[in-house]
Amino acid sequence: MQDAQDIINAAHRMADAARAAILPFFRTGLAADNKWQTGFDPVTEADRAAERAMRDALARLRPDDAVLGEEYGATQGSSGLTWILDPIDGTRAFLCGAASWGVLIGLSDGRDVVYGLIDQPYTRERFEGGLGRARLVTDGGERPLAVRQVDLPQATLLTTYPEVGTENEAAAFRRVSRQVRLTRYGLDCYAYALLALGQVDLVIEAGLQPYDIAGPLAVVRAAGGIVTDWQGGPAQGGGQVIAAASPDLHRAALDLLNGGTA
Amino acid sequence: MQDAQDIINAAHRMADAARAAILPFFRTGLAADNKWQTGFDPVTEADRAAERAMRDALARLRPDDAVLGEEYGATQGSSGLTWILDPIDGTRAFLCGAASWGVLIGLSDGRDVVYGLIDQPYTRERFEGGLGRARLVTDGGERPLAVRQVDLPQATLLTTYPEVGTENEAAAFRRVSRQVRLTRYGLDCYAYALLALGQVDLVIEAGLQPYDIAGPLAVVRAAGGIVTDWQGGPAQGGGQVIAAASPDLHRAALDLLNGGTA
Repeated sequence: MQDAQDIINAAHRMADAARAAILPFFRTGLAADNKWQTGFDPVTEADRAAERAMRDALARLRPDDAVLGEEYGATQGSSGLTWILDPIDGTRAFLCGAASWGVLIGLSDGRDVVYGLIDQPYTRERFEGGLGRARLVTDGGERPLAVRQVDLPQATLLTTYPEVGTENEAAAFRRVSRQVRLTRYGLDCYAYALLALGQVDLVIEAGLQPYDIAGPLAVVRAAGGIVTDWQGGPAQGGGQVIAAASPDLHRAALDLLNGGTA
Repeated sequence: MQDAQDIINAAHRMADAARAAILPFFRTGLAADNKWQTGFDPVTEADRAAERAMRDALARLRPDDAVLGEEYGATQGSSGLTWILDPIDGTRAFLCGAASWGVLIGLSDGRDVVYGLIDQPYTRERFEGGLGRARLVTDGGERPLAVRQVDLPQATLLTTYPEVGTENEAAAFRRVSRQVRLTRYGLDCYAYALLALGQVDLVIEAGLQPYDIAGPLAVVRAAGGIVTDWQGGPAQGGGQVIAAASPDLHRAALDLLNGGTA
């Protein structure tokens, strides 16, 4: 991509702007209001302030790009590029004060996600993937992102909610969970960052939105992992998503999700 | 306690020593060995190195105190004080690269836990409670720890494993979980730190060891919370533990744990 450096710079400035907008709200007694009449989907002032801050930064730096954001929807562009933004993925973790939430930024060229960031403002960790980058940047420096290689019986599996999604989705998840060494819950987008770091091997979720997966997809893929839907097709639409550290692990987990018994 | 300042200083030097011992092992490809032939209980070199480092620091600073540690057991003392050490609480989180593990330090006067720390070496957060202290210390400064006050329907409940413990323990947990606004999993000792920070309201766990709860008990109590077993008795022996932000919340959750329907 011709203007890769310009794109990367814009992404980092957006993430910087989101950090500054969000952190004053983290671990305060902020009341959540409910987006939906039923159920619990907290949206905080921080969420909205961060998306506005990212959109403002982008409007200054790259006014011709389109935007799809969780909070403020779609804004048309003329460049053929679309930024896909989730200002706070993991709002429930955010409200609990746990640092597994993150700012998600993905860039689509219209066919696929080509670049993305998972940024954790409180720990100041920024996971970056695509356009030749695959790294974790912290205040202490940077380290390359690379998946590890283990077989299914040695694998660690992460997801956010023990109930996963529908009953069928939960049953499919359990078919994988029963075959791995360790299953952990509650990590939101940070699960994909840990996969890209080579600390865990599988992330399986359901009910995702496109903005939940664009940034993580780019980061995991840049680290050498595979991200698809549960049928092995493209994941950028959201829904049922599996991220795996290797083709073998991906194949084994897909078999189990789709009814196999390994 | 006459030598409170000396005790507090020793605790911080122990936590410093543990940080230095552990961090080189965090997010490396360290293989876990299994303490038990069956099941999965990873114990890392980091765990052992950290307990040795804490014991060394204590031997220099306060050689007359007794020690009870997860890795190296009991060491007698003559002061009447016992340090209760868990060098890495949350070894599974540690192996996943998630920063919800912690170094736990508690001090017992023979009757009760009177002081404790929950230290998170990677995020450099140290939660301290007892002997007049109730604070979170970070590189950026410190803030007081204080629980918040909400009713059960607005409460957030944390635990580490969705399965909680035995089937009966899981059923009891679910009776509480069904009455609260939000339940989250996977936070290990960090759950107690978030309760002391006023971010969440209840932590309910089972199958704990004494060294799992000594440090957290002191921190939560210093922040204004209540920590007991599921019958309302002392929690320092471990087993079934409930930590609550207020007496009302504690009473309501205990009722549900013991079969009530609220």
